[in-house]
Amino acid sequence: MSSYPAPLARLIKGLCKLPGIGEKTAARLAFHMLKEQKENVLELAESIGKLRLEMGLCRTCFGLSEVDQGSTKGAECKVCQDLRREREKICVVEEPADMVAVENCHEFKGLYHVLHGTISPLNGVGPDSLRIKELMERVRSSGILEIIVATNPTVEGETTALYLSKVIKPLGVKVTRIARGLPMGGDLEYTDAVTLSKAIEGRREI
Amino acid sequence: MSSYPAPLARLIKGLCKLPGIGEKTAARLAFHMLKEQKENVLELAESIGKLRLEMGLCRTCFGLSEVDQGSTKGAECKVCQDLRREREKICVVEEPADMVAVENCHEFKGLYHVLHGTISPLNGVGPDSLRIKELMERVRSSGILEIIVATNPTVEGETTALYLSKVIKPLGVKVTRIARGLPMGGDLEYTDAVTLSKAIEGRREI
Repeated sequence: MSSYPAPLARLIKGLCKLPGIGEKTAARLAFHMLKEQKENVLELAESIGKLRLEMGLCRTCFGLSEVDQGSTKGAECKVCQDLRREREKICVVEEPADMVAVENCHEFKGLYHVLHGTISPLNGVGPDSLRIKELMERVRSSGILEIIVATNPTVEGETTALYLSKVIKPLGVKVTRIARGLPMGGDLEYTDAVTLSKAIEGRREI
Repeated sequence: MSSYPAPLARLIKGLCKLPGIGEKTAARLAFHMLKEQKENVLELAESIGKLRLEMGLCRTCFGLSEVDQGSTKGAECKVCQDLRREREKICVVEEPADMVAVENCHEFKGLYHVLHGTISPLNGVGPDSLRIKELMERVRSSGILEIIVATNPTVEGETTALYLSKVIKPLGVKVTRIARGLPMGGDLEYTDAVTLSKAIEGRREI
């Protein structure tokens, strides 16, 4: 690092903090920015700098939304504003990125709710640290018929799904879980035992 | 892309232009920046934004140097300023990144000259497009004894090396080329024929 002039060294250090970017990649990116058209580089700097100012959380589903410059309150996201969505179904996900993934598969036309984490006692995250209270509020007040729990198929995700089912079912709302099984294009021979047993357990008539 | 709010989509598009970063990686980086500490993200934006303002080319060797805020002229880089360097040897490289690579191996204690490219007639790059004129000027005026050509071992790099040797040797200065051979830890069995023949050609008594 010592051979780089200070501004370059500072940039490389900053880029190194990004996930999956080590010192070599950071240096390659930094040298690219030195050669790239100046406008592109300044535009990128502006995009990063303004990101946190312009992005906020939807006040209803806690997904990503653009900040409403006219008001101090958080804006609603595009999905929550869209009146053509099936408003009696809510898909519960862990993170905003998961909401984007579900949107991109075009299978689900309902609303979302982003928990911003999972129940994880080992890390000191209980139900109160997540947006579960707000979800319960929505279930109670907006005529929801089905909650589709789309947390990750990990220990924490499954724990969270079980907890949600336990607290929401008493309200008379159907709680479903996305299917666990073999991924499309997968290979039975190389599938781990837990996934395979889930796939058999979740078998359906054809 | 359509599912991302505008500021996020703009950032992802900007990150996609960086080398080796596709849409998935760009999205992962962007989501990371949404969760990361705000100060770190703003610092990164500032580093990128200021990079081109604060970095310039050394007026002597055309390597990277910090811009001298007090003057309008380009500053000299740290290597050129360092009076302990062997000032009668110049290592010629293609790009500033190559200069950093040579510096990091701590084998060379002389000065540098960065060409900013290689002779490549197919791409319309002739000797006049590179910093060769300035190199000749240095050779003529500063008592240089040896020019070490460390361009890449590619067709363009070799062409440039040959050209440099042709124009500099008549000035009575020794022109050397870095050795081509097997990389350390390499395997004779899997080495390509050109590298192997260069290694045999460049053999030395032990």
